[in-house]
Amino acid sequence: MKRFITILLLFVAFQISAQTDAENLKKIYSNSLTNGMSYQWLDHLSNQIGGRLSGSLNAEKAVQYTKEEFEKLGLDKVWLQPVMVPRWVRGAPEFAYIETSPGVTTNVNICALGGSVATPNGGVKAKIIEVKTYKDLEALGEEKIKGKIVFINRPMQADLINTFEAYGGCSVERYAGAAEAAKYGAVGTIVRSLNLRLDDYPHTGSMGYGDLPVSKRIPSAAISTNDAELLSGMLALNKNLNFFFSQNCKQLSDVQSYNVIGEITGSEFPNEIIVVGGHLDSWDLGDGSHDDGAGVVQSMDVLRLLKESGIRPKRTIRAVLFMNEENGLRGGRKYAEVAKQKKENHVFALESDSGGFTPRGFSFQCNEAMLTKIQGWRSLFKPYLIHYFEEGYSGADISPLKDDTIVLAGLRPDSQRYFDHHHASNDTFEHVNKRELELGAASMTALIYLIDKYGTQTISNTEELRD
Amino acid sequence: MKRFITILLLFVAFQISAQTDAENLKKIYSNSLTNGMSYQWLDHLSNQIGGRLSGSLNAEKAVQYTKEEFEKLGLDKVWLQPVMVPRWVRGAPEFAYIETSPGVTTNVNICALGGSVATPNGGVKAKIIEVKTYKDLEALGEEKIKGKIVFINRPMQADLINTFEAYGGCSVERYAGAAEAAKYGAVGTIVRSLNLRLDDYPHTGSMGYGDLPVSKRIPSAAISTNDAELLSGMLALNKNLNFFFSQNCKQLSDVQSYNVIGEITGSEFPNEIIVVGGHLDSWDLGDGSHDDGAGVVQSMDVLRLLKESGIRPKRTIRAVLFMNEENGLRGGRKYAEVAKQKKENHVFALESDSGGFTPRGFSFQCNEAMLTKIQGWRSLFKPYLIHYFEEGYSGADISPLKDDTIVLAGLRPDSQRYFDHHHASNDTFEHVNKRELELGAASMTALIYLIDKYGTQTISNTEELRD
Repeated sequence: MKRFITILLLFVAFQISAQTDAENLKKIYSNSLTNGMSYQWLDHLSNQIGGRLSGSLNAEKAVQYTKEEFEKLGLDKVWLQPVMVPRWVRGAPEFAYIETSPGVTTNVNICALGGSVATPNGGVKAKIIEVKTYKDLEALGEEKIKGKIVFINRPMQADLINTFEAYGGCSVERYAGAAEAAKYGAVGTIVRSLNLRLDDYPHTGSMGYGDLPVSKRIPSAAISTNDAELLSGMLALNKNLNFFFSQNCKQLSDVQSYNVIGEITGSEFPNEIIVVGGHLDSWDLGDGSHDDGAGVVQSMDVLRLLKESGIRPKRTIRAVLFMNEENGLRGGRKYAEVAKQKKENHVFALESDSGGFTPRGFSFQCNEAMLTKIQGWRSLFKPYLIHYFEEGYSGADISPLKDDTIVLAGLRPDSQRYFDHHHASNDTFEHVNKRELELGAASMTALIYLIDKYGTQTISNTEELRD
Repeated sequence: MKRFITILLLFVAFQISAQTDAENLKKIYSNSLTNGMSYQWLDHLSNQIGGRLSGSLNAEKAVQYTKEEFEKLGLDKVWLQPVMVPRWVRGAPEFAYIETSPGVTTNVNICALGGSVATPNGGVKAKIIEVKTYKDLEALGEEKIKGKIVFINRPMQADLINTFEAYGGCSVERYAGAAEAAKYGAVGTIVRSLNLRLDDYPHTGSMGYGDLPVSKRIPSAAISTNDAELLSGMLALNKNLNFFFSQNCKQLSDVQSYNVIGEITGSEFPNEIIVVGGHLDSWDLGDGSHDDGAGVVQSMDVLRLLKESGIRPKRTIRAVLFMNEENGLRGGRKYAEVAKQKKENHVFALESDSGGFTPRGFSFQCNEAMLTKIQGWRSLFKPYLIHYFEEGYSGADISPLKDDTIVLAGLRPDSQRYFDHHHASNDTFEHVNKRELELGAASMTALIYLIDKYGTQTISNTEELRD
C-alpha cells in the first residue's frame, strides 16, 4: 500500500510538473513573439553598428552596446572578459577580371579570404588552372601549377538536406587551398564561394597558411558562384586565358577586445553554470545579422525571457557573447581557459550560430542517457514544431569547454537559406524574419529552463527515490 | 513451421520494400534538388507572366504556358477543363489620406479588397470610427456609425505558432466587415491588412456582400499595418479627423477560363485517381509566386519527378492547376462536378497552397486508421526533416471533392513568413528560395508515391494475408 501511494504521489507530482512546464513554455514563447527584444537589439547591432570584424571599431561598439543592454536588464552580474584578438583588415576593394586576349577583359566578383595576404602592388596576372578539389593539385604537380593561379571550383553538394553538411564537405578548399597550391609554386588561389545558390556575391571566410613561411604565402580570394561558372565555362573554351586580381588586405598586430557576459546567479546551485551564447564578431562584408547577430540577441533574450516569465533559475545562467569566432576563436578559448583557472563547474552550454531562421530543434554532444532524458521533453516542444533532438555538433565558441561531464548543444534552425548569406555582403538585417528569430530565442530559453530545472544528471528521480 | 516461414517471408518482403521506398525517396529528393524544374517554371510564371487574376489576360497566358509545359513532359494526357470565372478589375490605383484639419493630410497605403465596389466618383471623405472586430458594430449601432467610414483594426494574434490560425482568427473581418458595417449606414470600410509584420504593404483578398442589395453595397479597402497603427494613433488624439479614399474597381461579366490538367494514367488501377494541385490564378498586386505559383509548379514537378525517378504509378496521377481559387473557387467546384458526372473514383487529393517555404509535413482529412497508416511512413521522411503528419485542413480547391472515402491532404510548409507576402505586392519571385520550393515538390512526390504504392485502404497486408 505504501508503495502504491508513493507511485501515485510520484505520478501526481509528474502531472503537475508537466503542466507547469507546458505553461512555462507557453509563457516563454508568447513573450518572445509579442514582447521579444531580440529583433530590436539586432536592428541596432546591424543597422546602427554594422559588420563587426574582430579588432575593428564596430566590434568595440558592439561590446559597449551589448554590455549596456545587459545592464538595463537588471541581471545579477554583467562584465567584460578581456581577450586579445587578431586584426585583419581588408583595405581597398578587391578587383578581378578574366582576360581572353590582350585588353579584352570581363570583370568578376571576388573578395579576399580572411587571413589572406595581399597581392603584390598592382595585382597579379597569370594563367589559371582549374581543379575540383585541393587534392587534385598533387597529381598535377609543380610543372603544371608553377606560376599560375589555381582556381578551386568545388560546388557545395545540393542534394544534402542539411546544408551545413554540404558546407563541411568543401570548406577545407577555402581554408587550406592556398597553402596547398603554394607548395607547387602557384601565385594565387581563387576559390568558388561556399554558396548553394548561383548569384553574384563573393563569400569570404577564414583561411590559413599552416606552417608555410611568410615568404611563400600567396593571396587567396573567393569568387561568386555565377562568376565561378563563367570562369569555368571560359576556361573550357580557352585554357590560355589570363586571370588578374588585386587585393590589399593586411594582418596587423593583435588588439584588446572582450567577451561580454551577463549572468543570473542560481538560487540553489549557483556553482553549477549553464552557458548560452553566440559570437559578437562577424565578417566585414555584410552586417552579420545571421552570422551571428542572431545568436547574440537570442542569447541575450534568454536571460530576459526567463526573468519576464517569472522563472528564477536554480543554477547560474550566463549569456556569453564571444569575440572572434570567425578568425581565431580567441573568445571561446579565453572563456574556457578562465573557467578552468577558476575551477568553475560548467554543466551545460548552448550555442546559436546557424542563423536566425525558424528553429527545428537542437543537436547535442552528450552521452546516450542524457540524450534520452532530453528526448523525453519532446512532447513539450511539439506545439512549437520543434522536433529535432539528435546527437551532433554544438558550436565553435563553446567547444573549448568540452570535458567528460558537460553537455553541449547547438540550436538547429532551418538551414536552407543560410549559405545564401553566410559571410557575404547580403548577410543583412532585412533577411532576418522577426518571428523566426523570436521562435529561436524562445526555443533556446525553453531548453535552458528545462536543463536548469532537471539538471544534467541522468539518474532519474524514480531511481533515486526507489525504496 | 509453415507459419514461421510465412512470417519470415513477410519480414524479408517488408525489409526489401522499405529499402526500395527509402531509395526511391532519395532519388526523388536528389532529382528535385539537383535537377528540379519547379523554380524555372516559377520564374516564367512570375517574371514573364506575372499576377494572374481570374479573367485577366495573364491568367489566360498562364493556362497556355502550363499546358505547353505539361505537353513537353510526355504525359499520358493533357487537357483544359473549361470553367466560367468572375472578372473583377482593380482599375486606376487607389488613393487615401487622413485629414486632421482642412487641407492637412497624410497619405496612407490602401488597396481595394477583391469583389468590392468602387467609391463614388471623386472618392469618399467622412469621419472614421475604429472598432476591433465587426462584432463591435452592433453595440455601437446606427447612431454612431451612419455616414462614417468604419475602420476595423484587428491585428493577427502574434503568439499563435501556426500563422494560418492567426489568419483564420480575423479573415472574417476582411470578408464580411463591409456587409456588416453597411447595415448600420457606414459609407465605407477600411480593414487592417492581414499581416503579422508592421510594414507598408496593403494586402488584398476576397470580400463579399452576402445578400445585401447592390444599392446598399459600400466600398471596402485594406490598409497597411503601419498605416493602421498610424491611423489608430491619430484617432486616439483626434476623434474628429476625416478619412478619404478613392478606388475604381469593377465587377465585369464572367468569362471563359480553364483548369489545366496533366495525367499519368495508372498501370494497374487506372480508375483510381490521385490528384495533386495548386491554383493557377493569383491576386493582381504581386506576381503570386508564393500564392500559389509555388503550388502550381510543385504539382507539375510531381509528375516529372515520378517519371524521372523511374516510378510507374499503379494508379492514375493527375496534376490539376485550378483556376479562380482566390475569388470564387469556380475551378475547384467545376473539377469536382465533372468528376461526379463522370463517376470518377478519386481516392486521394493533395494541395499545396501555403507558400513555397521549407516543408514541415502534411495535414490530413481522413479517418484515424488511414492517418495511422500514413504516420507509419514517418521514418521514411525523417532524413528530409519532414515530421508533421497530423489531422487538419487540406486545401480549398480540393475540398469540393470531399466524400466519405477520399483522403484529402495539404502540404504544410513553414508558415512564419507567409503572411508577410500573402495577397500583397511583395508576393514576388525573389522571396521564394529555390531549395525550399524544391524540397516541397519532392515531399509532395514522395507522399504521392507512397499513397500510390500502398493505396488508401486501411486493411493492412498482414491482415489480408493472415491464414
